[in-house]
Amino acid sequence: MDDLQHDYPWTKNPLVIGAPMRLIALAALATEISKAGGLGFIGAGSDTANLQSILEEVKRSIADAPNLKNVKDVLPVGVGFICWAGQKLLKEALPSIEKYRPAAVWLFAPREHEDLVRWSEEVRRVTQGKTKIWIQVGTVENAVEVTKSCQPDVLVVQGQDAGGHGLHKAAGIIALLPEVDDTITALCKTETIKKPALVAAGGIMDGRGAAAALTLGASGLVLGTRYLASPEANIAEGYRQAVVEATDGGQMTERTKLYDQLRGTTDWPDEYGGRGVLNESHTDAGKGMTFEENKRLYDEAMKTGDEGWGKNARLTTYAGTGVGLVREVKGAAAITEEMREDAKTILRSTSSKL
Amino acid sequence: MDDLQHDYPWTKNPLVIGAPMRLIALAALATEISKAGGLGFIGAGSDTANLQSILEEVKRSIADAPNLKNVKDVLPVGVGFICWAGQKLLKEALPSIEKYRPAAVWLFAPREHEDLVRWSEEVRRVTQGKTKIWIQVGTVENAVEVTKSCQPDVLVVQGQDAGGHGLHKAAGIIALLPEVDDTITALCKTETIKKPALVAAGGIMDGRGAAAALTLGASGLVLGTRYLASPEANIAEGYRQAVVEATDGGQMTERTKLYDQLRGTTDWPDEYGGRGVLNESHTDAGKGMTFEENKRLYDEAMKTGDEGWGKNARLTTYAGTGVGLVREVKGAAAITEEMREDAKTILRSTSSKL
Repeated sequence: MDDLQHDYPWTKNPLVIGAPMRLIALAALATEISKAGGLGFIGAGSDTANLQSILEEVKRSIADAPNLKNVKDVLPVGVGFICWAGQKLLKEALPSIEKYRPAAVWLFAPREHEDLVRWSEEVRRVTQGKTKIWIQVGTVENAVEVTKSCQPDVLVVQGQDAGGHGLHKAAGIIALLPEVDDTITALCKTETIKKPALVAAGGIMDGRGAAAALTLGASGLVLGTRYLASPEANIAEGYRQAVVEATDGGQMTERTKLYDQLRGTTDWPDEYGGRGVLNESHTDAGKGMTFEENKRLYDEAMKTGDEGWGKNARLTTYAGTGVGLVREVKGAAAITEEMREDAKTILRSTSSKL
Repeated sequence: MDDLQHDYPWTKNPLVIGAPMRLIALAALATEISKAGGLGFIGAGSDTANLQSILEEVKRSIADAPNLKNVKDVLPVGVGFICWAGQKLLKEALPSIEKYRPAAVWLFAPREHEDLVRWSEEVRRVTQGKTKIWIQVGTVENAVEVTKSCQPDVLVVQGQDAGGHGLHKAAGIIALLPEVDDTITALCKTETIKKPALVAAGGIMDGRGAAAALTLGASGLVLGTRYLASPEANIAEGYRQAVVEATDGGQMTERTKLYDQLRGTTDWPDEYGGRGVLNESHTDAGKGMTFEENKRLYDEAMKTGDEGWGKNARLTTYAGTGVGLVREVKGAAAITEEMREDAKTILRSTSSKL
């Protein structure tokens, strides 16, 4: 039995993980993924206003799930926090974490590294270590720093292909994951600390990407963009269709601060940008339209509903470079199962051809 | 038997390919890779001044190689051309291609798409189709265009992690390769043309990356950066050491035009940049140093020999984001064999754990 199946006993190998997409991955998506033998994360983001009600909804909706109803120690979903909001967010979140004991918290983008140490300690303290600590990194240096200071249970290694927020400057997981693995393995041996499990994020869209990530050293596979095209993702139908329609994701997406700014989110630290599908807002900004005018048109587009999304429209459509591989809407449970089974099949068939 | 083993009968499965690094991959490197059952490419680049003498040297050095000496139809190495030099380069290169019949030509970065059509036709004509046509692409759209118009034998699918020259804006192969594969498969079916083999470039450093690329749909694995740390690469010892020493390649490399400009190469079309290790030239440019002063210091550094390379020095060190996985100098034959065997072992072991 793999370590991850030990910590999350309702899950199947290889572990398929739903990324904590803010405002998008709520109870419906996270629960459906866990029901299918994966681990779904709630995207709490930088705000806890709805966290308790979302966790309450999770609790209700797992009551009849054959693989989840007997999980007693923890609530069988995770919660992702965007940590630039600092200690205030930790203080607000801690009572819900203590009360519901999610299986894991996923920590990302602190302003101060020290905040991650505090988060790790406090979450472990209030849950007696039952809630596992996942920390997202995008560089080898950061993986080392985090492993030394927080001894996380899991490092989420995010490559440049990921949709939504990540480092402006980063390698893809093809190069990043093996280098993190080698470096962390050596570090943990020298310092005699337990090696965190590595899970990969960024560009994994189907069984091929999943199989690739496993050969690179991942124990789990994080999907964000792929789940956008599930009915359980809390997004407008226009957004979902824009994801299904986009192709050639290396060209038709870009990591930028523009899409955040148009939505009024201006707090991300400098080194992060949000990857999204190119659209009219982006084109107009490139042609020199003032931000004020772009924002005005954005706010107008918000009133048009589903028409507001698409390459010839204006609304923010966060998605990764693999968006061209998303060609249909499918239930989150089916995506989870398919990913797991296809990864196995592809590994077997690729191996047998050699 | 795989198609590629049919076309290059001295090679073993999976096919390991030496990238045609200009000025770096000459007879020694290319021949050593082919001797080890791979396919080495000569980096002719945009210039044919030394091509005939290099091919002559290849011919001499394979005379005793057990797996190559009986290859009669072709010279068992390829030649890579950077096509922005246009028809003039084709005209200059054609006599050597006709005379030596390299196993393949690898075409990259034309100014006009039409040039690729002309190259493909002429090379096929003068070699009666014996020299195979490889064309490098970095987008799905370009893969479609090239497949329709040139019907190449091989598409080299390059992701953003690649060292040296590539598109400024690109996906990693984790997302790019499967999307190209699906799109080209559908296209070739509709248009009833033979599907080109896909080989992957960008971030493949060892058996893990090789195994990953195979699961993503590649039939062959292109290595550039990894071979820089072989004695057969035609680079200064200082360059080689800078490659061995660099770590955290997503952070410590960048795709830029600066390194080309400092070397006096200003002909690359706008959309291409050269990925190299960050150094003092880059830092100073970022701090606002004039290009003239930077170039003057660069030319001074050229006189210092091996001291000129390294993160605290100035000379251009093209390398990919996987540079941190290169930790020792090793013979090109050993790299080739290790890559092939490790890929198989990793696929088997990853598959058996599931």
